[in-house]
Amino acid sequence: MNKVIEQTFSVPFRYPVCFTTRLFDTQNPLLADVMRGEKIPKAFFVIDQGVSEAHPRLIGAIHRYAAAHQGAFVLAADPLVVPSGEQCKNDQASFQQVLDATNDYGIDRHSYIIAIGGGALLDMVGFAAAIAHRGIRHIRIPTTVLSQNDSGVGVKNGINAYGKKNYLGTFAPPSAVINDLTFLETLEDRDWRSGISEAIKVALIKDASFFQWIVANAKALAARDMAVMTDLVVRCAEMHMEHIAGKDPFETGSSRPLDFGHWAAHKLEHLTDYRVRHGEAVAIGIALDSTYSYLKGMLTAAELQQIIQVIRDLGFELYVPELSGEVLLQGLQEFREHLGGRLTIMLLEKIGLGVEVHAMDTELIQEAATRLKTFQMEGQNVSS
Amino acid sequence: MNKVIEQTFSVPFRYPVCFTTRLFDTQNPLLADVMRGEKIPKAFFVIDQGVSEAHPRLIGAIHRYAAAHQGAFVLAADPLVVPSGEQCKNDQASFQQVLDATNDYGIDRHSYIIAIGGGALLDMVGFAAAIAHRGIRHIRIPTTVLSQNDSGVGVKNGINAYGKKNYLGTFAPPSAVINDLTFLETLEDRDWRSGISEAIKVALIKDASFFQWIVANAKALAARDMAVMTDLVVRCAEMHMEHIAGKDPFETGSSRPLDFGHWAAHKLEHLTDYRVRHGEAVAIGIALDSTYSYLKGMLTAAELQQIIQVIRDLGFELYVPELSGEVLLQGLQEFREHLGGRLTIMLLEKIGLGVEVHAMDTELIQEAATRLKTFQMEGQNVSS
Ligand SMILES: NC(=O)c1ccc[n+]([C@@H]2O[C@H](COP(=O)([O-])OP(=O)(O)OC[C@H]3O[C@@H](n4cnc5c(N)ncnc54)[C@H](O)[C@@H]3O)[C@@H](O)[C@H]2O)c1
Ligand SMILES: NC(=O)c1ccc[n+]([C@@H]2O[C@H](COP(=O)([O-])OP(=O)(O)OC[C@H]3O[C@@H](n4cnc5c(N)ncnc54)[C@H](O)[C@@H]3O)[C@@H](O)[C@H]2O)c1
Ligand SMILES: [Zn+2]
Ligand SMILES: [Zn+2]
Repeated sequence: MNKVIEQTFSVPFRYPVCFTTRLFDTQNPLLADVMRGEKIPKAFFVIDQGVSEAHPRLIGAIHRYAAAHQGAFVLAADPLVVPSGEQCKNDQASFQQVLDATNDYGIDRHSYIIAIGGGALLDMVGFAAAIAHRGIRHIRIPTTVLSQNDSGVGVKNGINAYGKKNYLGTFAPPSAVINDLTFLETLEDRDWRSGISEAIKVALIKDASFFQWIVANAKALAARDMAVMTDLVVRCAEMHMEHIAGKDPFETGSSRPLDFGHWAAHKLEHLTDYRVRHGEAVAIGIALDSTYSYLKGMLTAAELQQIIQVIRDLGFELYVPELSGEVLLQGLQEFREHLGGRLTIMLLEKIGLGVEVHAMDTELIQEAATRLKTFQMEGQNVSS
Repeated sequence: MNKVIEQTFSVPFRYPVCFTTRLFDTQNPLLADVMRGEKIPKAFFVIDQGVSEAHPRLIGAIHRYAAAHQGAFVLAADPLVVPSGEQCKNDQASFQQVLDATNDYGIDRHSYIIAIGGGALLDMVGFAAAIAHRGIRHIRIPTTVLSQNDSGVGVKNGINAYGKKNYLGTFAPPSAVINDLTFLETLEDRDWRSGISEAIKVALIKDASFFQWIVANAKALAARDMAVMTDLVVRCAEMHMEHIAGKDPFETGSSRPLDFGHWAAHKLEHLTDYRVRHGEAVAIGIALDSTYSYLKGMLTAAELQQIIQVIRDLGFELYVPELSGEVLLQGLQEFREHLGGRLTIMLLEKIGLGVEVHAMDTELIQEAATRLKTFQMEGQNVSS
C-alpha cells in the first residue's frame, strides 16, 4: 500500500505598523483601539529596564492610560520590568519570568502581551509570547531606532543559546507594532546611531536614492535632528516591511538579503561579548563586505569611499581588533548553518544593488579587514 | 503625527501525508525521496523508547537504509532514543536533549529532524524542531493509531508545563508525515484502541455515515483487524486534514471543533497523573459531553445509547472516579484559557452534527458524570 495525500493551505497574516507620538497620553486612542474587541482583553506589559529608567513616569502613565480606557482592555498585573539589552536574550531568567507571568496571571491566547523596549527585549518577549499557549497576541512598542525601523516591524523573535545569536526563536507576526517616536529622544548617542546602520544596509542593497538621501543627511542625523530621523525610520521600516511581505516571509530558502553585512556582525557581537551593539557591528559588517566587494572588482573605489565616509560621518567605528582574528571566519560557517542549505552571502554589485554569492575568499576577507583598520586610523587622523 | 501602514501577506504551506508499509526496507524509496534535493541534507532521528523496544531491529534498519540512500541524505548522528509517552512532554530533559543535538551535530534549517513514535514523542520533538534556528525541517513518522489518524497529520506541537497539557508549543506544519501501518501491529491493546476515540470524535461532529461505519466495524477493530484499522486511519486522517486546511489552521479564533470531548479529557489526563491515556480520556470526554447533550435535550436516548455502546464495544472505560470531583470543572476554565477568548464547547445536535455553546451547566455536567458511572456498572454486569 502506498498512498499520498497532499496537504496545502495558506495562512494569512495582517498587522498594522503605526507611527505616533505621546502614545500613553490618555487622549491618544491608538493603543486602546488596537485591543478593542467583543470582549475586554487582559493586557500584560513587559518593559525594558533602560527605558523605564529613562522614562521614570512611564509606568504611572500606563496605569493612568489603562484606567482611562477600561472599556478597551484591563491590566493583567503590574508591568514587569526586565534587564535590558542582550542580557535578556542571553540568560534565560527574564524569558522564564515572562512565561511564568502568563501562567500566574491567566494570560490567554486572546490577551495581549505588550513589550516596550529595544530590539533585544522585543525579541525575547516576542518569543515567550509565541510559545505560551502556542501563541498569545503580542504588541510591540519599539523604543530604539533599530527596533523601530527594522527588528520591531518584522516577523522574527528569539533568544540566544549555545553562545549563538537567536539560536532559539520562531517566525511569529505581531498583532500590531506601535512606533512612538518620542521614545527616541532619550536614547544614548550610540543607540540613536546604531539603528541607522540598518537603513544604510537596506539602501545599499535596494535603493541608491535612499542611500544618497542618507549621505546628504548624515550630519543632521549625527546631530540628532528628529525630523530627519523620523523620515529615516518610516522609510526604512517600509522597505523592511515590503521585503518581508514580498516573498518567503518565513525564510524557507537560503537567501536572506536583509542580512547584508550580518555574517560578520553576528560573530563580532559574540566575540566582543556584546560590548559592540548589533547596529554598531552591522556598520562594521557593511564596511567589511563593501570593501570585499570592492576588492572583488564589483564596487568602484569612489563608491566604496562614499560608503566608508557615511559610516564615519555618522560616528561609527570601522574596525575593532576582533575583526582581524581567524576566528571571525567561523562566522561564515555559523551564518550558513543558521540559514541552512547553501552558503549565501549578499555583496554589492553597485550602490543600490545587492548580489548573492555562494563562496567567499578568506584571504580577501582578511585583506578587507586590514583595509578597515587603515580606514579607521585615517579617520582618526582626519578628526584629530 | 499619526501614520499607519498595514502589513499583509500569506504564508503557503504544503506537505505530503503518506501511507506506506515497511518504510525502512531499503527497497522503499519513500523516505529518501522526501528528503532528496539539490544538496544532500543531514537527517537526525529521534525514536520513542517504547517503539525501539518493540522493534529491536529498527535502529539497524535505519543505518542500512541510510547506507543504501547516501545520495539522498546522510545521518547526522546515531538515532537518539528518548523515554516515551507523556513523560517526554512532562519533564524537559528529552526536549533539552533534542535541542542540544541540533547544536552538537550542526543540524541546520535545511537538515531534517525525523521523529518516530507516538503522539507524545512527536509533539515534543516537533516543538524542539520548530524553535531551533527558528525552525528545522521536520518529518513525522507516527507509530500509534492516535498519531497516525490525528495528532501526527496536524500542525500543532508542544510540551506540558505548569502542570498543564501543551502549555508551550507552536503551530508548525511538518515537511512530511509518513504513516507506516506495520508499526501498529506491535501496539499494546490499549494504545491500539486509544486512537479510535479520535475517529469517533470526528465522525460524531461531522459525518454520521463514518460513525455508522465505526459502529458496524467496532468488533473487528477490537479484534485488531488490520485491514479495517487501515481504512479507519486513512479516513480519519483525511477528515482531520480537511478540517485544518479548511479554515483557521493556526486557530486564531476561539472555536476548536476537533476538540469535542477534550475539555474533560485534558483535565482527566492530568488528574490521573497520565495513568489514563489521551485517547482513553477522550473516549470518556466524548461519553460525558454526549450524555450532557442528551440531558440538554439535543441528542435522543437512542443516539446516546449507540454512542455509549460503541465506546464500550471497543473496550474503553466510560468512567473513572476523577470524573465526579468538583475539580474536574476547573477543566472548563483551563480549556477556555488555552483557547483564549470566549468559552466555546462543542456539543452534539445529533450524530454527525456538532454545535458550539458558550456556557455549560455545572450541575448537569455532574449529573452526566453520575450517569456515566451507571453506564460503566451496567457494562460490567452485561459482560460478566
Ligand atoms: N528580530 C529581528 O528581526 C531583529 C533584527 C535586527 C536586530 N535584532 C536584534 O535587536 C537587538 C538590538 O536591538 P537594539 O539596537 O534596539 O538594542 P537593545 O535592545 O540592546 O537596546 C540598547 C539599549 O538601549 C536602551 N534603550 C532602549 N530604548 C531606549 C530609550 N527610548 N531611551 C533610552 N534607552 C533606551 C536599552 O535599555 C538598552 O540598554 C539585537 O539583539 C538584535 O539581534 C532583531
Ligand atoms: N499535536 C496534536 O495536535 C495532538 C492531538 C491529539 C493528541 N496529541 C497528543 O498525543 C499524545 C498521545 O499520543 P499517543 O496516543 O500516540 O500516545 P503516546 O505517545 O503516549 O504513546 C503511548 C505508548 O505507546 C508506545 N508506542 C508507540 N508506538 C508504538 C508501537 N508501534 N509499538 C509499541 N508501542 C508503541 C509508546 O512508547 C508509549 O509507551 C498526547 O500527549 C496528546 O496530548 C497531540
Ligand atoms: Zn540587523
Ligand atoms: Zn485528541
